[in-house]
This record gives sequence, C-alpha cells and structure tokens, in this order.
Amino acid sequence: MNVLWISAHPEPRSLNGSLREEGLRALTELGHEYRLSDLYAMGWNPVVGPEDYGHDPAERLHVADASAEAYESGRLSDDILAEQEKVEWADALVVQFPVWWYGLPAILKGWFDRVFVKGFGYGITREDGVALRYGEGKLAGKRALAVATIGARASALGPRGVHGDLTELLFPLLHGTFWYTGMAPLPPFVVYAADCLDDVECTAKELRSRLETLGTAEPLPFRTQNGGDYDEDLVLRPHLARGRTGLGVHWVS
Amino acid sequence: MNVLWISAHPEPRSLNGSLREEGLRALTELGHEYRLSDLYAMGWNPVVGPEDYGHDPAERLHVADASAEAYESGRLSDDILAEQEKVEWADALVVQFPVWWYGLPAILKGWFDRVFVKGFGYGITREDGVALRYGEGKLAGKRALAVATIGARASALGPRGVHGDLTELLFPLLHGTFWYTGMAPLPPFVVYAADCLDDVECTAKELRSRLETLGTAEPLPFRTQNGGDYDEDLVLRPHLARGRTGLGVHWVS
Repeated sequence: MNVLWISAHPEPRSLNGSLREEGLRALTELGHEYRLSDLYAMGWNPVVGPEDYGHDPAERLHVADASAEAYESGRLSDDILAEQEKVEWADALVVQFPVWWYGLPAILKGWFDRVFVKGFGYGITREDGVALRYGEGKLAGKRALAVATIGARASALGPRGVHGDLTELLFPLLHGTFWYTGMAPLPPFVVYAADCLDDVECTAKELRSRLETLGTAEPLPFRTQNGGDYDEDLVLRPHLARGRTGLGVHWVS
Repeated sequence: MNVLWISAHPEPRSLNGSLREEGLRALTELGHEYRLSDLYAMGWNPVVGPEDYGHDPAERLHVADASAEAYESGRLSDDILAEQEKVEWADALVVQFPVWWYGLPAILKGWFDRVFVKGFGYGITREDGVALRYGEGKLAGKRALAVATIGARASALGPRGVHGDLTELLFPLLHGTFWYTGMAPLPPFVVYAADCLDDVECTAKELRSRLETLGTAEPLPFRTQNGGDYDEDLVLRPHLARGRTGLGVHWVS
C-alpha cells in the first residue's frame, strides 16, 4: 500500500518521534511505500487565508466558495496542492499527534482546514444533488488510522471516565473528517499516560502490530449518510438506536 | 463585567464580522468593558514551539514541563503573556468562530494550545496533591460563552442528527477546556445554516439578548471532578447516570 504519514509534534526526540521512526520502519518492512508530512519540520502554515486561494484581499472572502473555485481552476497555493497530491497517492493515512486540550494540535487541525477544501474534502454531490459524504466522497476507498498520545490514564478516558470517552472526543476527526470525506476510519491507536511511559519499546511493538493490519482491520462501524438510516432532515430514524441520543447513535452496534 | 472577546474569522466583512461588531456594541451598551483578541488581525501564531518558552532548541523539549518553568519564571513569549493578562483581567470570555471540520479553526485552537500553559490552564493541584480542574482551577469564577456559526442546519446537528449533537462535538471546548480550567461554560450561541442566513439583523438581535444574560445565565450543568461523583480511577460512580456511557453522562440531569 501507499501510506501517507502525517505527524504533528514539535520535538523529534519525543515519544511521538520514536513511535514515528518505528512506525515508518515497520511500514517498509511490511512492503509498503510511505511518504511523510512532518508538519513541524515542514514549517506548515495552519492558518486558512485568502492567499490559499489566490483571492484578491480587497474582495470579501467566502472561504468555501473561494476554495472551491481555486481547487477547480488549479489556483490553490503550492503547499496545499502538494499535500492533496500526497493524499491522492495514498491508500491509507496515518495521522499521528499528541492530544492537546482534547483535540488536535493547531498545526494539524490547520492541515485539514487548508488541505480539505471544498470540492476535495466536502461539497461533493451526486448528479441528483445528493451529498456524497460519510462513507462516500472523493477519498472513499482509503483508510485512516489515528495514532494519538495523551497524558491521562485510560480509565479517565473510558466510557464513563471524567475526561469523556476518547473515541467520542475524537469524533470530529474520526467521523466528522475521516468518515465525512469517505475514508474508512480504523480504531485509533492510543498511548495513554504517555508522560509516565516506562517501556517505549513495548509500545512501539504494539504500534507495529497495528500497522500489520492497516489494510485488513475492520473500520469503525459508522453509519452511511445515504444508506437509509437517516431521514430527509438527516436525523437518525426512530427505530435505530431507539430512545438513545448522543454521538454513540452513529455507530452500528 | 470585563469581557475578553476572542474571534477567529479571516474576513471582517463576514457574518462573523457583523456579529462581532453587534456583540461588542451590545457589551458597551450594557455597561461592560471589553477587550478584543481578533486573532486574524493580530496575525496570531497558533503553533506551539520551543521559542514560546525561551527553550534552548538543542535540548529536548518537554512541552508541559518547559511551559510550566517558563510560566513560573516569567520567560513565556510576550504574545502569550499579553493574552494571559487579558484572561486574568476578564470576568467572562466570549469565544467566537466558524465551525470548521466540527471544531475550532486552527488559529483559535492554537490560542488555547499556546496561552493555556501548565500552571495557568492545567497542572494546578491542591496542597494535598489533588488536581484542581473541572470546575476548579486558576480560571474559576470566570464565565465562558462560545459563539459559533456552522453551515449545516440545526436538525442535522441535533441529538440524533447525522453530524452528531453539536454540544457533544464541542465537548472538548466546553468541558475539556472551559470547564477544565475552572470557567463556567454557558450554553453556546449557535447560528445554524450560516451560509443561507437571510436575516443577519435578526440573528444579531438574538446574540444581543444572549449577551444581556452573560453574567446571570445558568451554566451547563457539568459535574465537578472533586465533588464525589467520580471514583479514585476518575470513573463516574455506578449509581450516577446508571447504565449509560458516552459524553452525556458528564452532565447532571
């Protein structure tokens, strides 16, 4: 497979750096090709602005429209185009980051904000006008694995842990970004209590074994938008996950 | 009250820009003082790095430790210090943004990543070692209101809507950031279907009436960490929200 590895830690000598090194070595040993977007090393600019779209700053900027026009006419800035080319090349994305404030570091959030423009990441419709997203879209057929480190221990990030269930905290990435654009989100690989980790080698080994199933692991069972589970207001039909609310209803159980 | 208004939209002539203008006018009319952090206008740098902490780049960077040392010794970079001073001055924060990929624009995420360093936003303990967070902490006593615009319609962001319940999508901000640092999170003010909005004046009026209750509105009823609801593993005790899982268990219902 072709794998795009995106990483977002300021310190290459960190746990994140070691895991990346091990992970990339494992990909090569498994016979995959990889390309790396090391956002800190690249000096990635995470801030959406008119210059992304060659937009005249004297004119009012409508982000979605301007991005769609620039995408269609090939006027996106070079750094965005380079990342889109990598995504198109890839069969799978590995997105690696330390969890900060229960989400992505800004440099990584801004990779999605800037690269997944309208026409590429969203705003894609069928001929009859139906939106293609949540399992359908331009990135359908690709797989996506989040690799996250977090300081808190596992119990505090479990289904009833004080910080909230980690898979639900990452729902904007797993469901709202990966699945939205058509990619199949794999269960995230999470290193808990990362600051107290006493055996990096053991964790690296676990990561390697997760990478062995990158092409075969069962994705998270999110519902498709156009499979009949949602009504015309995009609300889950009442006979499904009956009586329940919250993010958990969007998984098929 | 002293109000710090933080906004994160690249276009001042946008809906976000109009609402900000109306909101700030309303604050003045209500007799409040305000200060504004217009992140785009400031050219805010959202990327955490060693220079934030005056850290020698030849040495390995531990983000949490380096930030705590720099905070305690007054060596944080000037742009971070200026924002912390505004937060300390404020009785309430208004955090205004367009929802992008079901979260904060990178420039805003990186405001929290950089300003809420260890010792200021987290890592605060009682003398007996108990963590002060989720209702306690350095920012306790302040209020926080999120003002968000989003393209999707309300039904699709409701309790069973296809995108996920918006309050749960914003849990990392409302619970994991505002409440974590001790601030009382107010119910967010959300403009749905923002691209199709045909009456900005009406929306501005709704915002003004929400700002009238900035000092009095009932905050979201999140549970406190140290109030007895969680056990020693920081897991919600079984008799509370019995049998339920997911982010919703952290609200008192």
